[in-house]
Formats: sequence, C-alpha cells, structure tokens
Amino acid sequence: MPARGDHEQRRREVARIAAELVATGGLTAATHRRIAAASGCSTTVVSHYFANKQDLIRAIYVEVGNRVTSRLVAAGASTTPLVAVLEALLPLDEDRVVDWRLLFAFLGVAVTDPDLEAEQRSRVAAVRARIEQVITAEKRMGSVPGDNDPERIASVLLAVVLGIGFQALFDPAYWTPARIHETLNQALDDLGPLERSKRPPRRR
Amino acid sequence: MPARGDHEQRRREVARIAAELVATGGLTAATHRRIAAASGCSTTVVSHYFANKQDLIRAIYVEVGNRVTSRLVAAGASTTPLVAVLEALLPLDEDRVVDWRLLFAFLGVAVTDPDLEAEQRSRVAAVRARIEQVITAEKRMGSVPGDNDPERIASVLLAVVLGIGFQALFDPAYWTPARIHETLNQALDDLGPLERSKRPPRRR
Repeated sequence: MPARGDHEQRRREVARIAAELVATGGLTAATHRRIAAASGCSTTVVSHYFANKQDLIRAIYVEVGNRVTSRLVAAGASTTPLVAVLEALLPLDEDRVVDWRLLFAFLGVAVTDPDLEAEQRSRVAAVRARIEQVITAEKRMGSVPGDNDPERIASVLLAVVLGIGFQALFDPAYWTPARIHETLNQALDDLGPLERSKRPPRRR
Repeated sequence: MPARGDHEQRRREVARIAAELVATGGLTAATHRRIAAASGCSTTVVSHYFANKQDLIRAIYVEVGNRVTSRLVAAGASTTPLVAVLEALLPLDEDRVVDWRLLFAFLGVAVTDPDLEAEQRSRVAAVRARIEQVITAEKRMGSVPGDNDPERIASVLLAVVLGIGFQALFDPAYWTPARIHETLNQALDDLGPLERSKRPPRRR
C-alpha cells in the first residue's frame, strides 16, 4: 500500500492532467474515462482520487490557486513589487491564460455552489490583502503617494486587474500584452505621481 | 399553426423560465424536464424550442444581453449619463445580481466554446463603445477633463466595473452597495477634477 504522501502527490498529478482537459474542452470534457486515459490509470483509480465531479473541480481550483500564490510570492521579491504583483494576476503568458480559463470554468459552477463560492471568496480576499500589504510597504518607501488609503487603492487596482483579465480571456486579439500594460499603467498613473521607475515599460 | 411571432415570443418566455432555473441551481438544473415542468408545457415542446443545451444557453445569454442593453439605454437618458451607465452594469439590485450570476454560468461554458466566446466578445465591445461615447459627450459638456483619451478612460472604467461585479458576485457581504459606490467613486476621482454633481453620492 503506497504511503499517504504518494497518494497526495499522485492525486495532484491526476488533478493537473484533468485541468489540462478542462482548459481545452471545458468541464464536460473531464470525464473519469478521459482522465483515466490521459493519466494512464484505470477509471477505478480516478474514482478513488475523485469521488465526484465537485471533488474534481475543487482539486483543479486548488491547483490553480496554488499556482497563483506561487506567482504572487515570486512577484513580492521583485524590486517593483506592486507592479509585479498586479502583473502576476494578469493573463500575460500562456500559463496565466490557462489559469484564467480554468478559473472561469470553476466560477461557472461556483456561482450556484456555496462551498465553491466560499473558496473563491477567501482566495480573492487573500489576494486583496496581499496587494494592500504591498501598497503599504511601497508607501513607506515613498513610491506610492502618502495621501491614498491602501485598502481603497488595493480595491480599485484589483478590480482593474480582474476586469482586464475578464475581458482579455474572451478577446485576446484586442487585449494584447501591450494594451494590458497600457491599461494597467493608466490605472496606476491615476493614483498620482508615483516614481516612473516603479512602472512597467509603456508600449503602444 | 401559430404565427412566427407567437413562436418567438413563447420561445423567449421559456428561455426566461430556464434562466430562473439556472440562476438558482446552475446550468445542470436546467434540464428539459424541469423547464417543461416550470413552464407548463411538454418536454417535446421544450425540445422544439431548444434543440440542445448550447441552444438553450445561447438563448438565456441573449435574454441577459437584452436586459443589459435596456438598462444602458435607460441610463443614457440620465442627467449624469457616465455614472448611470457604469451603475447600470453593476450588481446593485437583485435583478442585476441575477444577471451577473447568469453571465458567469454562461462564461464558464463560453471559455471553451468559440461561438459563445464570440458572442461575449461582441457584447463587451458594444458596452465599451457605449461608455466611450458617453465619455466623449461628457467631455464636450466639460464634465470629464479634456486631457484624457476617451478610449483609455473607457477601458479603465469598464475594467473597474467588471472587476467589482466579478468580486461582488462571490462576496456580497464585503461588496455592499456602499462599497461598490465608494470604489466606483475612487476610480472616477482618479480621472481628475470632474464636477462633483456628476458623481453618485459618497457613502461610507
């Protein structure tokens, strides 16, 4: 009998494979049969890891959430943490586009499922708190104007970032990386005279 | 045999009933059997209106889109059209909350369906164009500062509104109407010195 750690690791591996199926074909594509075929195990084993569809959806969401958290941690170590944290949330490369796609597949179900809804609520609250922390730190360093309330700025900036991702996912031709940066810059400019060096490069 | 107009009207009625089922129980709740029971017709009749699930989802989305368009038209006639148009898009009453819920149920499917994705893309582009028009009109009236590019302002404001709705849907306790107004005000304030009378009231 495999150790508990092996079970967890194997379960996460299967969740990642299932996530790839969902990102391409939507939630209906992630049947136990297809997951089994793609991961090279039997449907019995897949059922052992995921009792039902909700169980599977939650596992995929946790995977996506963990990837987002890793990106935020990495961004926090940047010399321009506010911009880096906001960019970490935006669909600026294929990995982040896939995670946005998975997020929407998840939210389509979460919207009428109280457990999944609570999961989304706590994730977003954690991200907002993280942005607020970074703003507070940058205020101390003088790179965010001191007369702005960090919670309010965090609220507006997170709304801008989520609103961009929301649109970009369905209209990647309009929302090129250049336009995403430009819109984020506009929102940051609106906050007042930050130091230029704290901004992503302007591109048109 | 009923006239074509009757068929269309009856089909929309059934779509509205299906939308109520989706808003409460998600897309899985909108089975032909349940729609038939709720609308008082046979499953054969429901199948006649909606050949398959995608057909039904699209009809519900068109219903929601039409309601949003009606709200935007009404908002355009306001004495403060920019604020009114933005508020028309926000989940500030039960009808708009239901439409946000339906939108997310739809987007969960649209994310891997090119036809539905195109539908969403063109709807959002139309809303963005509408906001841009209103900004251009308000600039002429002097209620939006003249040094801002309408397309850029429209992009940021639409992102803010969508980002607020996105969060509010899963966290209505945090996103009270007061906080929604406050965040929208903050984003509008950021645009520069608009006339105070053009803003929604500040509440804390």
